Amino acid sequence: MLTLYSFGPGANSLKPMLALYEKGLEFTPRFLDPTVFEHHQEWFKQINPRGQVPALEHDGQIITESTVICEYLEDAFPDAPKLRPTDPAQIAEMRVWTKWVDEYFCWCVSTIGWERMIGPMARALDEDAFEEQIKRIPIPEQQVKWRNARNGFPKEVLEEEMRKIRVSIARLEARLSESPWLAGPDYTLADICNFAIANGMQNGFAEIVNATDTPHLIDWIQRINARPAAKAMFANAKSEMPERHKASADA
Amino acid sequence: MLTLYSFGPGANSLKPMLALYEKGLEFTPRFLDPTVFEHHQEWFKQINPRGQVPALEHDGQIITESTVICEYLEDAFPDAPKLRPTDPAQIAEMRVWTKWVDEYFCWCVSTIGWERMIGPMARALDEDAFEEQIKRIPIPEQQVKWRNARNGFPKEVLEEEMRKIRVSIARLEARLSESPWLAGPDYTLADICNFAIANGMQNGFAEIVNATDTPHLIDWIQRINARPAAKAMFANAKSEMPERHKASADA
Repeated sequence: MLTLYSFGPGANSLKPMLALYEKGLEFTPRFLDPTVFEHHQEWFKQINPRGQVPALEHDGQIITESTVICEYLEDAFPDAPKLRPTDPAQIAEMRVWTKWVDEYFCWCVSTIGWERMIGPMARALDEDAFEEQIKRIPIPEQQVKWRNARNGFPKEVLEEEMRKIRVSIARLEARLSESPWLAGPDYTLADICNFAIANGMQNGFAEIVNATDTPHLIDWIQRINARPAAKAMFANAKSEMPERHKASADA
Repeated sequence: MLTLYSFGPGANSLKPMLALYEKGLEFTPRFLDPTVFEHHQEWFKQINPRGQVPALEHDGQIITESTVICEYLEDAFPDAPKLRPTDPAQIAEMRVWTKWVDEYFCWCVSTIGWERMIGPMARALDEDAFEEQIKRIPIPEQQVKWRNARNGFPKEVLEEEMRKIRVSIARLEARLSESPWLAGPDYTLADICNFAIANGMQNGFAEIVNATDTPHLIDWIQRINARPAAKAMFANAKSEMPERHKASADA
């Protein structure tokens, strides 16, 4: 039995969720509500002591880290539709892309997302309530990120992150102008893991991601959104931000 | 045919090098000398446009990123001795550890290493020669790191990195006090990739990594150094820092 603990279908939560839909694996979705800090509650820290979603429970075993969960599904369900190439060099190419999104692309987009969305949420709490929530966060770097979001990230940090976003988008556009999918001829976890971050940027970062400047990236976002698995996921999955995800799905 | 482009047997270069030795795969070592910035020379940027070692050439195909190369060797040489478990949950456990070293552990140790070793090297160049080298570095973040090393990293950065080193070492010690190897009963890429960073810390960070405070970590470092593959690697591999690596191998 599979249970996926996650936020709505965006960012890291989207990765294993879309992979599960693509592979046609039945699972029990367990939505956690970030607006009430549910992932920092004790019951969930029993499942993942780091207090981070997504986490997958498979027959009582817990797998964490979104990208690791995606590859786990490939290893544990070899008979389901494959999202990993079979040629070793193409697998390596896929992993360079999934690694890049985890080490570079996701962070710059995340900072801007936190500035825009987590900042107001953190400022809506009074000092005591905020400190109460902070205390429950097991990762010190996440505590710092919450404080930065509440205070507003420094201007030079935001500028540097926007620079990295432009570098990232240029990299994706360049690759997609020469290849239908990121790791080569086939749709793989490279696409799913990057889509998790890129989808929605045609709305939230429309000055960078748009049909004129990044036609191949826009086409790729649309092709993934048009897949039956993505449609089913967006239609079924609970979300903390229904408006945004509806908009993404309509892209 | 396999060719490994790398620095000496330490840090990221050590990962695929030790994996090749453990798997008994014949390869041509191509040592690049970081003290003359050989990895930023044009000939090497033809191989890896990012100007980063290690890189593996296999029958004309280039594989980059140390951890990706390690898993590539598992995929491409399934008949060689395995460094990846076969049970999917244990593979996931291994990947949590290889991901953690790449996203957390390696960075804090790297900053201190750069402060101690790259800083003096960068300051030995006059302004013009330094700027000439900087121009050849393709990754902007690496250019910034070189400038920081030359100027000396800010005190608060060094303190934060030392905090992360202590967190990292405590995490390794805790895990190794309950398990012989990081990903469970078997020696895997989790061990090789973490050893790449941890080995030598018993010398350079002896106030944190020592037989009194971290007996299990010290024992694990010694067990890996005692393996025939590690001994052969340290005996054969060219190094930019022969003294340090000799010390490590004697640990």
